[in-house]
Amino acid sequence: MGGPSYSGIMDRQQIIATAHEMADAARAAILPLFRVTGLDTTNKLEGGFDPVTAADHAAERAMREVLARRRPMDAILGEEFGAQEGTSGLTWVLDPIDGTRAFISGTPTWGVLIAVSDDTGPLFGIVDQPYIGERFEGGFGRATLTGPHGTMPLRSSATAVLAEAKLFTTFPEVGTEQERAGFNAVAAQAKLTRYGMDCYAYALVAMGQADLVIEAGLNAYDIQGPMAVIAAAGGIVTDWTGGPAHQGGRVLAAANATLHAEALELLKPFT
Amino acid sequence: MGGPSYSGIMDRQQIIATAHEMADAARAAILPLFRVTGLDTTNKLEGGFDPVTAADHAAERAMREVLARRRPMDAILGEEFGAQEGTSGLTWVLDPIDGTRAFISGTPTWGVLIAVSDDTGPLFGIVDQPYIGERFEGGFGRATLTGPHGTMPLRSSATAVLAEAKLFTTFPEVGTEQERAGFNAVAAQAKLTRYGMDCYAYALVAMGQADLVIEAGLNAYDIQGPMAVIAAAGGIVTDWTGGPAHQGGRVLAAANATLHAEALELLKPFT
Repeated sequence: MGGPSYSGIMDRQQIIATAHEMADAARAAILPLFRVTGLDTTNKLEGGFDPVTAADHAAERAMREVLARRRPMDAILGEEFGAQEGTSGLTWVLDPIDGTRAFISGTPTWGVLIAVSDDTGPLFGIVDQPYIGERFEGGFGRATLTGPHGTMPLRSSATAVLAEAKLFTTFPEVGTEQERAGFNAVAAQAKLTRYGMDCYAYALVAMGQADLVIEAGLNAYDIQGPMAVIAAAGGIVTDWTGGPAHQGGRVLAAANATLHAEALELLKPFT
Repeated sequence: MGGPSYSGIMDRQQIIATAHEMADAARAAILPLFRVTGLDTTNKLEGGFDPVTAADHAAERAMREVLARRRPMDAILGEEFGAQEGTSGLTWVLDPIDGTRAFISGTPTWGVLIAVSDDTGPLFGIVDQPYIGERFEGGFGRATLTGPHGTMPLRSSATAVLAEAKLFTTFPEVGTEQERAGFNAVAAQAKLTRYGMDCYAYALVAMGQADLVIEAGLNAYDIQGPMAVIAAAGGIVTDWTGGPAHQGGRVLAAANATLHAEALELLKPFT
């Protein structure tokens, strides 16, 4: 079999099962704390508004416990408890609650983000919305939504014209002035622009309901789970220059290559 | 007993049961069409973007069928099929899909809005989110959420300071320049401003998760259902001058009287 290739160390079924066990554990940790008043929120950044809830910590701890038991050889990069080295060449990239502002406002648009990645980016990912009970997964030949109304395949849209595209971002300010201007250049051409969906916007692209998501200032753990799901559903996620997006930064998620190219052209002057 | 007072013609239990039967019928009509690609959407307004889906029509038709059978003496005001006179002094105010842009984008933040009202405003209302399976109801002594995780009482928040308040509106542009400036005056003082939730924002106030919703350009059928639910949960809904909001227009929904007064003071220069 030769050197330490992934074929020797990756058991895809076991990785997929581990990811689902992690998502289940995160759900169980978070749900009792969702929409409970008087949550213990603290500001992580001096002066900035970045609430961390008890749920955030409990969920990442629960996911790390699953990994310690089932995949101790893999590395971990988590939002709350940082990086842990591994020996397998695989890294689990975790955001226990993406969309903490959504969470503290009670909107069911936050999600648990899980990706398992190598140096080239995510191989498999999950976007889980525990309150609705929706799980989006993609990679290793799978692209599926399991939700309150059953299980269905994920397939991104064939919308090929920007004038027909539905565009999402979470915050109208987007990022810097320049980043906002870049976003607005695309928004001016789009059929519809919507805000406030957090990671759920990426799930909408995977479902074929939204066509574009443009954001800035992301971290690796914000994008790797969604990226795996969208790629598996037929979409494309890059940075604003068309380069890799799995380290975060400025992100463009598109339903297909045509739409991606159109949006990229409009973003170019702002990169 | 005297003249034709409501006590003679209102059977509260029967009205409540009718409202739920209508909401059930709307769910059944809409759900098969949610997230189906190639929906039959048309623009109602020349040049404006106001999609009407087949689901919208089917749901209002289904609700009117329930009323024709159970409450033929009541008047109806519906978004899609207009006004129908009655003899009871009660009017059912219906928006089969509030948030059609949300609907065509796949976000579960649209809702079926039902209110039963007299001249003074709504007496009982429902905000239903069929995909999540959440039903918010308020009036006649009830204030309840029934959802995927059970049934619980609705109670708006006690947040009394604007600096601690979570503020929602659907579109960052809000309405006219002046209306946007009014919204921004409040947003500048709020802890957190979020967008894109459609009628779900009002449900968040009723749940005690959001504290304020400020919108403009609403119709009677956009606000009467949410208004009944928020009032029953302890909140207040008025226009931007503190007057009645049940005819729509500029709306301020607040979790409590203190917060309502604070927001009203800031909105005053813009009315």
